[in-house]
Amino acid sequence: MSLPQVGHLDPYFLELMEDIKSLLRYSFQTTNDFTIPVSGTGSAAMEACVCNLIEPGDVFLVGCNGYFGYRLVEMGKRYGAVTQAMVKPWGEVFSYEEVKAAVEKHKPAVLALIHAETSTGACQPFEGIGELCRKHNCLLIADCVTSISGVPLFLDKWGIDAAYAGTQKALSCPPGVAPLSFNKRAMQKLMSRKTAVANWYLDMRMIAAYLTEGGGGARSYHHTAPISMCYALREALEIVREEGLESRWRRHQQVAEGFWKELEAMGLELLVDHKHRLPTLTTIKVPAGVDPKQVTSYILSKYQIEIGNGLGELAGKCFRVGLMGVNARSDIVLTILAALRDALEQQGYQLKPKQKMRAAL
Amino acid sequence: MSLPQVGHLDPYFLELMEDIKSLLRYSFQTTNDFTIPVSGTGSAAMEACVCNLIEPGDVFLVGCNGYFGYRLVEMGKRYGAVTQAMVKPWGEVFSYEEVKAAVEKHKPAVLALIHAETSTGACQPFEGIGELCRKHNCLLIADCVTSISGVPLFLDKWGIDAAYAGTQKALSCPPGVAPLSFNKRAMQKLMSRKTAVANWYLDMRMIAAYLTEGGGGARSYHHTAPISMCYALREALEIVREEGLESRWRRHQQVAEGFWKELEAMGLELLVDHKHRLPTLTTIKVPAGVDPKQVTSYILSKYQIEIGNGLGELAGKCFRVGLMGVNARSDIVLTILAALRDALEQQGYQLKPKQKMRAAL
Repeated sequence: MSLPQVGHLDPYFLELMEDIKSLLRYSFQTTNDFTIPVSGTGSAAMEACVCNLIEPGDVFLVGCNGYFGYRLVEMGKRYGAVTQAMVKPWGEVFSYEEVKAAVEKHKPAVLALIHAETSTGACQPFEGIGELCRKHNCLLIADCVTSISGVPLFLDKWGIDAAYAGTQKALSCPPGVAPLSFNKRAMQKLMSRKTAVANWYLDMRMIAAYLTEGGGGARSYHHTAPISMCYALREALEIVREEGLESRWRRHQQVAEGFWKELEAMGLELLVDHKHRLPTLTTIKVPAGVDPKQVTSYILSKYQIEIGNGLGELAGKCFRVGLMGVNARSDIVLTILAALRDALEQQGYQLKPKQKMRAAL
Repeated sequence: MSLPQVGHLDPYFLELMEDIKSLLRYSFQTTNDFTIPVSGTGSAAMEACVCNLIEPGDVFLVGCNGYFGYRLVEMGKRYGAVTQAMVKPWGEVFSYEEVKAAVEKHKPAVLALIHAETSTGACQPFEGIGELCRKHNCLLIADCVTSISGVPLFLDKWGIDAAYAGTQKALSCPPGVAPLSFNKRAMQKLMSRKTAVANWYLDMRMIAAYLTEGGGGARSYHHTAPISMCYALREALEIVREEGLESRWRRHQQVAEGFWKELEAMGLELLVDHKHRLPTLTTIKVPAGVDPKQVTSYILSKYQIEIGNGLGELAGKCFRVGLMGVNARSDIVLTILAALRDALEQQGYQLKPKQKMRAAL
């Protein structure tokens, strides 16, 4: 990010953009031509999916099993969708049968599922859902904010038509741009819209004209891109490519498994079933008698480590610990465990003798 | 920007945000409480003004004397405004009488004027317009993208109700966040809207809840802010504060005056009348027989200096030279003059003997 600025129509920047697009395709496991960084943070890329792919009156079915599903519903309403929330308790995921029943019932034009629910730590399986959507002529949107490069993710193989992600999670890049990918089905819907995209800044028809038209001078100006953030994203994606996605996924999984084992050994309970647990984001139930905000602020001030508090329905009930990208390492796990143990003991939480012994190892 | 990341709800980041808000107030010359960085580039802050302050059916009057006025009209349409374009040739500005006549005729709910037209280099006077808008119960929006900290700008004194700016112009900060300020009249309209803000990411009611509610933990999460960009903006604004606005405005003016004199001595013609010329952005008419794109790409490849080509109506007719922030210096002017002279001569443009002599000095 410390590199000198160039103009957003400079040939050098356009080359940089091509690098980013190509590296993003790898991280998303897609060949989608329209795979780009949105000039905002993850929520902007989320809104870009909604405002470009939904026309007023479209039925928009959303899997709501955490904070971000409900946000999609809220966005859908603003863009005139007939929204249908498919609801599950926070921390659970939808089975194929549940999704199938809801799609058959509501006949949505667009279905959105949260691949990695940052608020709960649950990982939604996608097997079969892409085909289901094709059969019902429905577009499939996936929220990959906390999954990209940290958890197996296959846009093309799973038949995901549109996906968005965050840079500040497993990609270990500062927030400020956000990955987005539309496949041909999504682009076709976008290009044949009957109504204008209500959102100007996120209008992907105009962005496509900027990003894809001929060479340097011919590209039409839309908005100034965040140059430094694009430098950062290229570097982060390049680091992913160097490590390799499979190694990276394995590293995240191994590190998280070790963390979970130790947490359970400390007598702590995890919110999400092992089968659907995200390695990138672990939700720990707050033990009885413990004030979660005191724990997180103690850890922040004493150890300079930020642990998240519960969001929405889980406010006050969970800690959220991210082990993402550069932080998915066993030395980081040991530090967090020590900090958490210290903070919980400050709150009067008693480790059992056996747990204490283990903790001392 | 190379500082370590912190969370967007970290107390340190909230302090940083308070610094930015206070420094932005100084650069905008306002006491508006709601003075913030938008998490996108200048166009996002522009859209934030439109989508928050316009309700469907509102008459939206826009001064169109360049590219960015027309963009506001386009945005207004998307948010359901009844748009009225007040038109002038590109490079000219509106007189008070012209604005008054248009306001009386169209009775707009919102009037927008481009203080500094980045596409033409014209600087719109605002004297009396704030009062006029108050008299007609109309909100006044000003585009300050290319004026903030480079040209005298007084939000409060001029009665501007909402303003947006860019960071990558006279503030000399990379693009990625964008200044925005709403006064009480604007906030009142926002808070008493009958309809929801159609745009979720730029919904300033939700941003206000995040930015102003109580202390650290009490603030409600909206979206992840671009942390590194906020570091950059604070530093850029701090540099403005150190130099002082008046010195900075004077520096921009003096440097531009010197540039204009030399351009005229070279026999080149400027688009905008001296009286309304922006010191930050100079538009030079392309001399007959010269291919402007060849000139700008020659200068870019030989000197690594980016000179803009004409936008919209001025495409192929003008060069646009920015002397903004760190680049508003006489040594930069000398370099640009030399590069421009070289490039024009390559194109067969002949300096007169007297001009040649001057150029050799």
